[in-house]
Amino acid sequence: MPDNQHIQSSPYSQIPAGIVSLADYETHALPMLRTDIREYIDSGVADEITLRRNRSAFEQIGISPSLLQDFRQASTTTRLLGYPLAHPLLLAPVAHQRLVHTDGELATVRGAAALDTPMIVSTLASYRLEDIAASGHPNLWFQLYWQHNRENSLALVKRAEACGYQALVITLDAPVNGLRNRTQRSGFHLPAGVIEANLQGQPHPAPRPLDAHASVILNGFMVDAPTLADLQWLQANTRLPVLVKGVINPADALRFKELGMAGVIVSNHGGRTLDGLPSTIEVIAACRQAVGPDFPLLLDSGIRRGTDVFKALALGANAILIGRPQLHALTVAGALGVAHMLKLLRDELEITMALAGTPTLADIGPQSLLNLASPQTFAAFQPSL
Amino acid sequence: MPDNQHIQSSPYSQIPAGIVSLADYETHALPMLRTDIREYIDSGVADEITLRRNRSAFEQIGISPSLLQDFRQASTTTRLLGYPLAHPLLLAPVAHQRLVHTDGELATVRGAAALDTPMIVSTLASYRLEDIAASGHPNLWFQLYWQHNRENSLALVKRAEACGYQALVITLDAPVNGLRNRTQRSGFHLPAGVIEANLQGQPHPAPRPLDAHASVILNGFMVDAPTLADLQWLQANTRLPVLVKGVINPADALRFKELGMAGVIVSNHGGRTLDGLPSTIEVIAACRQAVGPDFPLLLDSGIRRGTDVFKALALGANAILIGRPQLHALTVAGALGVAHMLKLLRDELEITMALAGTPTLADIGPQSLLNLASPQTFAAFQPSL
Amino acid sequence: MPDNQHIQSSPYSQIPAGIVSLADYETHALPMLRTDIREYIDSGVADEITLRRNRSAFEQIGISPSLLQDFRQASTTTRLLGYPLAHPLLLAPVAHQRLVHTDGELATVRGAAALDTPMIVSTLASYRLEDIAASGHPNLWFQLYWQHNRENSLALVKRAEACGYQALVITLDAPVNGLRNRTQRSGFHLPAGVIEANLQGQPHPAPRPLDAHASVILNGFMVDAPTLADLQWLQANTRLPVLVKGVINPADALRFKELGMAGVIVSNHGGRTLDGLPSTIEVIAACRQAVGPDFPLLLDSGIRRGTDVFKALALGANAILIGRPQLHALTVAGALGVAHMLKLLRDELEITMALAGTPTLADIGPQSLLNLASPQTFAAFQPSL
Amino acid sequence: MPDNQHIQSSPYSQIPAGIVSLADYETHALPMLRTDIREYIDSGVADEITLRRNRSAFEQIGISPSLLQDFRQASTTTRLLGYPLAHPLLLAPVAHQRLVHTDGELATVRGAAALDTPMIVSTLASYRLEDIAASGHPNLWFQLYWQHNRENSLALVKRAEACGYQALVITLDAPVNGLRNRTQRSGFHLPAGVIEANLQGQPHPAPRPLDAHASVILNGFMVDAPTLADLQWLQANTRLPVLVKGVINPADALRFKELGMAGVIVSNHGGRTLDGLPSTIEVIAACRQAVGPDFPLLLDSGIRRGTDVFKALALGANAILIGRPQLHALTVAGALGVAHMLKLLRDELEITMALAGTPTLADIGPQSLLNLASPQTFAAFQPSL
Repeated sequence: MPDNQHIQSSPYSQIPAGIVSLADYETHALPMLRTDIREYIDSGVADEITLRRNRSAFEQIGISPSLLQDFRQASTTTRLLGYPLAHPLLLAPVAHQRLVHTDGELATVRGAAALDTPMIVSTLASYRLEDIAASGHPNLWFQLYWQHNRENSLALVKRAEACGYQALVITLDAPVNGLRNRTQRSGFHLPAGVIEANLQGQPHPAPRPLDAHASVILNGFMVDAPTLADLQWLQANTRLPVLVKGVINPADALRFKELGMAGVIVSNHGGRTLDGLPSTIEVIAACRQAVGPDFPLLLDSGIRRGTDVFKALALGANAILIGRPQLHALTVAGALGVAHMLKLLRDELEITMALAGTPTLADIGPQSLLNLASPQTFAAFQPSL
Repeated sequence: MPDNQHIQSSPYSQIPAGIVSLADYETHALPMLRTDIREYIDSGVADEITLRRNRSAFEQIGISPSLLQDFRQASTTTRLLGYPLAHPLLLAPVAHQRLVHTDGELATVRGAAALDTPMIVSTLASYRLEDIAASGHPNLWFQLYWQHNRENSLALVKRAEACGYQALVITLDAPVNGLRNRTQRSGFHLPAGVIEANLQGQPHPAPRPLDAHASVILNGFMVDAPTLADLQWLQANTRLPVLVKGVINPADALRFKELGMAGVIVSNHGGRTLDGLPSTIEVIAACRQAVGPDFPLLLDSGIRRGTDVFKALALGANAILIGRPQLHALTVAGALGVAHMLKLLRDELEITMALAGTPTLADIGPQSLLNLASPQTFAAFQPSL
Repeated sequence: MPDNQHIQSSPYSQIPAGIVSLADYETHALPMLRTDIREYIDSGVADEITLRRNRSAFEQIGISPSLLQDFRQASTTTRLLGYPLAHPLLLAPVAHQRLVHTDGELATVRGAAALDTPMIVSTLASYRLEDIAASGHPNLWFQLYWQHNRENSLALVKRAEACGYQALVITLDAPVNGLRNRTQRSGFHLPAGVIEANLQGQPHPAPRPLDAHASVILNGFMVDAPTLADLQWLQANTRLPVLVKGVINPADALRFKELGMAGVIVSNHGGRTLDGLPSTIEVIAACRQAVGPDFPLLLDSGIRRGTDVFKALALGANAILIGRPQLHALTVAGALGVAHMLKLLRDELEITMALAGTPTLADIGPQSLLNLASPQTFAAFQPSL
Repeated sequence: MPDNQHIQSSPYSQIPAGIVSLADYETHALPMLRTDIREYIDSGVADEITLRRNRSAFEQIGISPSLLQDFRQASTTTRLLGYPLAHPLLLAPVAHQRLVHTDGELATVRGAAALDTPMIVSTLASYRLEDIAASGHPNLWFQLYWQHNRENSLALVKRAEACGYQALVITLDAPVNGLRNRTQRSGFHLPAGVIEANLQGQPHPAPRPLDAHASVILNGFMVDAPTLADLQWLQANTRLPVLVKGVINPADALRFKELGMAGVIVSNHGGRTLDGLPSTIEVIAACRQAVGPDFPLLLDSGIRRGTDVFKALALGANAILIGRPQLHALTVAGALGVAHMLKLLRDELEITMALAGTPTLADIGPQSLLNLASPQTFAAFQPSL
């Protein structure tokens, strides 16, 4: 077992007083982390315009309640890819979880299981996907970063199939890394004890020679990126449903539906790839409009509140993914923290449904919202102005 | 008489120098309060988006004055539910007033009476509704929180009828409490001396058993919430006019009018229930448009200035409610503070009417305003741009 | 001669280094003033929304330059009420100038004369209008606050006529004072040495009895305010051209034109009367549109830069008024400061004209501007978006 | 060789840790400079509204990515004035570079050559244009400030022709200097060692007499400014292509195209001339629309990120200019710094192209962007709201 000297504070064995929201987990976690690890987790790319917008865009969307609705059949349940979900929440793929807790993904998966929440395990997990599956959590998905070529990539997929993962998520929005300046300035490096457990022993392809005038980025990394043909080949070679993660453009969402993908995850990678991408809540309605009512559409990036979940569902998402708060909760209180964080979010969603007058997820729709950013909306309220 | 050790500072026996606006009462009151009580009073739900919007939305509405109007018949009087009002101001229902002053509601009612201002007494008052009525204030209304069942609820209503309350306000926007995180973090608890005086001795219904998978929120609290049938039953069983408090959606306003309610109070509960609700000044015009010109429509949440009252009236409110400033004034100077606070607001309203050129409330209308948030308005001013 | 102990710092006998803009005069002046006097000068009414908007609204208006224009006949001259003006600048009426300088208006008038700038002398000047006129400044106007009745008011006007004032400005937007809370909190009072020199010995009318229920504001002050009939009577009884100051509503501007007034000053009283009035730069274009191209229209409130003057002219003003900066400059360096402040503003206007490509005032029009606040403008620039 | 005592810190001989973006160069450079020199470099005119807008306007423009594009032919190359460019970047003309580094433009030109980046040498360079050309950089342009008359101006042009400059840029937006108040307050003066090397020995025309009432600005400086006839004369007397720098108005862009100019540089002079000019990214699309698809259009002012370059190209620029970052990089690490700064910007542009899914510059267009400032765009995403 590798060392963990980079972990400076032991996690709490019970939830500290004063943690009553996901933001509180962030506040508590940050001082417990080594500076460069904190910067690695929290920073966005470049000037962090997209990172900030991931939160601020939610504030422009208002909720329109209806009083005295009938809650006798109220429920938060839904179905996704044929499986029932107690709540429309999933854990997003998050790499390197031993950065913040000795048990890393092995703790996270226990917290997720306790709250009946599916977990999407990252290619870059600190523990092997088989070890995570051994926890017995019945709803695991596997996230794939393309591994230079088809052979390496398929090997990972077959391992996921073999130990019971239910779905495959291929991330397509990060063929090169965004320059996260805060992370760069912090001198971030993976500590000795944090390995890419799934990739140990993977054969490395020979480096590709480049012309003197060629660009390492455009002619190097990008030519190694997965292609449309690779995606179709992968889909033909796995029995798992394949979802594409990293879609912002509604035309892309439609294209992946037409390619027969099982679903699309609208995501800007938590503001970590390209600064200037819109927030996902700004594009989810257009994506839903592009793919029609029945295609699975999930929303990632920026969710911190039950009201955020409500707004995402109202604009067309079937479910949402939680990213960084996993790490914040894991830092503070391990598996217990992850479970409690999910419980806080669920309670907030339920209270939102209660106060908005929407007894079931099917009742949540565009009519549940108000566009507070638009002067037109304001004018509509004031016809005589 | 219960103890009051939680009250840390004695109220002033005269108005402190430097209190010239409602905001000054808040500034003076906060340091006089125990921290958790201060947080309980001032916090909003979650990220306090709605709480801030309750103030900021007013700034987007401009006033369009007319010079040299004829003020020889100028007056602020109006009628509401058949009763005359000196000014279009009421005290909103505010719970637990012994949190800030030993005399609690008994002081508030004296301040209100001195300024001819109706007071809406809360179900959760620290003093019995009968004791408050004993003050002799001729314009008291009673606010009802549904008490688990019809029997408990009607018992309160009959007590209000018996001691001369003029109207009944049923609050429908809080079947579950919003999570006011600042209050939670502060460890707020009701001090020993602060009781729910009206509910002492009320029989508690047996707890309702829940399935293992049922939600305490959606299947517990919400099934105990009042229904449409309960509302109609209540209306049929009281001789008092019934107003509904907590409406945001214009469709709800219309529905309550069609159900024969006596009026509607547009309110977001001072930003304390669901974060993301619009401010009431943003929806009042649409509510007025929905119910037509003659139905009583009151506006609650966020009023702090005479110009705010003016804007609410211009967009369709018949009168407005004052919430937290009651507590701030009560903290600082008891009954005298409440009276002075109301006097400041009245004076500001009268000066606004003087400078806007609107001698009576009937002169205040949409033509008295400018929508400063809308580029369209700006463009209308600059046709050649 | 009254005392001047309230003046804490002697003015500089030369311009201090580092004063290169009107804002620098404010920065230098404030610490030289007694706290309550500083608050009296700089505060706006209530929450100072209008005061802030007086500056911020200018930032939303962009300038659209034209290169290589022909400047051989370039000039800033114009005509107003039949008199030539070297620049389209006037000193606004500002009361009580001995608050900041022993010589008060006697210094201001010397600074104005040195820069050929008309000065509008306030009813509430610290020196008698005759003494100010004795300076020999050839372009003085007199500002009238109505003095309870026709007799008192006309007496002032006749004095102004007698000593050569060229025009009369009647202020109509302040029949009651706005509540300037910062001034109130500061305990402001006029020092012993600062008198209303023009009003000494004026007979006071008997106080008007009010009903018990009457409002001091609406039924007291407002009934003493000048009426439309008073305005017409005044106009009929003076040979001076009469301009109305305090117009915001374009309908009022048109009405005063139709009443035969000589001109209108669009003003919100420097944000000191009614909080929520729009800034004047937001309404000047609509006022110009209402009165047509030839009626004298001046703009007051918020001008601090040559670019502000340019924008006001472009949207329809014939000239602009400078208020508070007079006092700032007077505080810092007396008559020399006032002259230098005007010189700074003139130079900024001339440089703006040079860089915008508008050789004369007649070249400055709506086509010289861009509405930066409007997404429509932005969209017009990006037709393919 | 003149002295350089004003340079307080020696430049680093390698890039300091923590410099990972152009903003980091600014942060590192500022404390290394004498205060007045820092203010001279960084300040904008007046209230710096345009300076701030040069950055903030970029934040309102979002990027719309397309996944899985084919990068096998990816490239950043383009052509300008018939010459190939490795990347669409040029160094803007920047005066007085010995203010920050002993080698001034001689260092800058070496950094630019190392990264194959054209450099536009300023009339006000600290070294003679011949000495800069002696570096052997094959892509130099010369920027001309009009020198009072045709003779002086043409003399400079002929020197540039003689030593191989490829193009001429005439700056037309600064016939008078904007009042950069921060620079004025700092007491900025050119140190003894910093001369206008190109202008040494230039004959000065006799001062022009002005009338007593004439304006030094409008009737002095402006009458010395170049005229349309001068521009046409210059174009007829040089074999170099002539580009005009300082265009904001689309009508001007079209006019210069029709006059046969070789290209236009859209610029607000880095926010240093007229406060209130729009940012160039706000007007570039309208300028492109005015001149049609094939006319060379460059964008200056505010570029600090690869995403900014991408947005400028998407809205119609053929290439962009880098101004102040040259000085920041030169201050910190001389020629090495300039080269590294250009490398950072190139890498950011390439990563943006990789993540946006645009393999070549020709693929970058309006469809690559989203207007995030417009509620209309937001509404388009939410048709059911």
